[in-house]
Amino acid sequence: MKIRVAIAGYGNLGRGVEAAVTHTEDMECVALFTRRDPKTIATATNIPVYHMDDAAGMQDKIDVMILCGGSANDLPCQTPELARYFNVIDSFDTHAKIPEHFANVDAVCKESGKVGIISVGWDPGLFSLNRLMGQAILPTGSDYTFWGKGVSQGHSDAIRRIDGVLDARQYTIPVEEAMNRVRNGENPQLTTRQKHVRECFVVAEDGADLNAIEQAIVTMPNYFADYNTTVHFISMDELKANHNGIPHGGVVFRCGTTGLNNENKHIIEYKLSLDSNPEFTSSVLVAYARAAYRLSQNGENGCKTVFDIAPALLHPSSPEEQRKNLL
Amino acid sequence: MKIRVAIAGYGNLGRGVEAAVTHTEDMECVALFTRRDPKTIATATNIPVYHMDDAAGMQDKIDVMILCGGSANDLPCQTPELARYFNVIDSFDTHAKIPEHFANVDAVCKESGKVGIISVGWDPGLFSLNRLMGQAILPTGSDYTFWGKGVSQGHSDAIRRIDGVLDARQYTIPVEEAMNRVRNGENPQLTTRQKHVRECFVVAEDGADLNAIEQAIVTMPNYFADYNTTVHFISMDELKANHNGIPHGGVVFRCGTTGLNNENKHIIEYKLSLDSNPEFTSSVLVAYARAAYRLSQNGENGCKTVFDIAPALLHPSSPEEQRKNLL
Repeated sequence: MKIRVAIAGYGNLGRGVEAAVTHTEDMECVALFTRRDPKTIATATNIPVYHMDDAAGMQDKIDVMILCGGSANDLPCQTPELARYFNVIDSFDTHAKIPEHFANVDAVCKESGKVGIISVGWDPGLFSLNRLMGQAILPTGSDYTFWGKGVSQGHSDAIRRIDGVLDARQYTIPVEEAMNRVRNGENPQLTTRQKHVRECFVVAEDGADLNAIEQAIVTMPNYFADYNTTVHFISMDELKANHNGIPHGGVVFRCGTTGLNNENKHIIEYKLSLDSNPEFTSSVLVAYARAAYRLSQNGENGCKTVFDIAPALLHPSSPEEQRKNLL
Repeated sequence: MKIRVAIAGYGNLGRGVEAAVTHTEDMECVALFTRRDPKTIATATNIPVYHMDDAAGMQDKIDVMILCGGSANDLPCQTPELARYFNVIDSFDTHAKIPEHFANVDAVCKESGKVGIISVGWDPGLFSLNRLMGQAILPTGSDYTFWGKGVSQGHSDAIRRIDGVLDARQYTIPVEEAMNRVRNGENPQLTTRQKHVRECFVVAEDGADLNAIEQAIVTMPNYFADYNTTVHFISMDELKANHNGIPHGGVVFRCGTTGLNNENKHIIEYKLSLDSNPEFTSSVLVAYARAAYRLSQNGENGCKTVFDIAPALLHPSSPEEQRKNLL
């Protein structure tokens, strides 16, 4: 019998979960929940579509609910609400609000007896794991996280709000020279400007003041002012042809020393190169959904994060097979 | 109150554990056990030294025993024996015999109520974790493990056994071009010869037949015959000056695809660059010793591997601090 997964929300992440489940042999998607009219949605693999209001009545048909909404408006309410009825997984990524979200989900899960795993993905998620393990193994040392090359949705949106802009795509790009200094064990102190550059591809309205748009971008506080930013004006056709993907990735480094006198250096580098940010995040969600199901079967409940999940729970094969084939 | 750690065996690994514990704030080394005459050993940080036979009587003074012997002759007996009295951690690295060793340690731990964690280090250990998680997250894909650049003790020993050889150091070196093909997402099929080369630095006796030594090395079955191997004859002074360290490292890749039609590629790369193989392994052992202590405090028992340990247990700070600072 397969693990019965339901998806809440059918954006990029929900579609990614649908596809990721087809890559497993032990899981199946049994329901998609939406706040839109279910009749208006046709899923790629013919998952039955229901209105979100009908979820509560389907408790006995679903083993894990994967929430695929946004961190700003959807997940703070939806995850605790659905944890009343289901084991839940989300990718809540507002770092500063994780403790509050954790407390909310934990309270509901302890009451309902369900398992919740929040902030699953790659950052927060796999990158967090590597920061934690790096510090645990090399307590004397420094952390570095670089992001990119990848599309930042928030920065792209910020450009689109400028007068005269029709569309835009912003890439966050790590500075290769800075990463190489870290790889060389120099333990550099790096400013924001030294770690990443921002590259913008902008489609402007006919006759727009390109110089004014460029100035508005590069001086925008919080988003661009602290970075070296380049702006390219391109046609809508070029944007669609060359900047349609959602790649991302990055690197977490832990650089530390061992020995009584710190005489030996060690560098741990964890690097992700992702063609599709949402599809990779979805794949992580699905692996942790397997863990949530197994924990729930073992009688556990409460809110967890990636820090609390034994890696064995993520992999479909048995502990014996894992030790034999993977250790 | 600090976690009281004892070390069994005072070779490179034992010295590494002694040093690694000085980098923690929540652990202390309270005893070193040896099969030699304790009076002949002075530890670098003045840990009291006892004979191995006296360990059983010190149960209430020690929270975790870290075994620092060899996988061939020491650990298969020592780990189960000491698990009768202590929570134990070892770095057992004979991959093919892990299931048997696990069963032996598990039986004793279940009887004694202690926690054992075996095969801790970087391979087996951190590399195993990355192989497991890579497969769990990207089920459709390929694994690659490269080792080096680093000193292989077994291959160095094999050269030393050749007639006319006084000393030798063998480096395993990954082929950069092969790694770059993996990084580029080519999913190459790689033979043994295409993945690694072997470089040997050999000190020969005066008047030895250098050509015969070189032929004996490059044609040696299992060790060198399947690799491109280069041999350099150097002086003992040069060996001591330039080849005295024990560096190692390597890379684990998972290259997989997502999407309904595998249309997106993703590459996960986990890379270690280590100045001192034993000191890094020791640092991993110490982090997992913390986990063993915490599991034991929670009433758990039995044998575990890195696959069974939730990452939160490895880090000294509280779950709340971890979520706030690291997630």
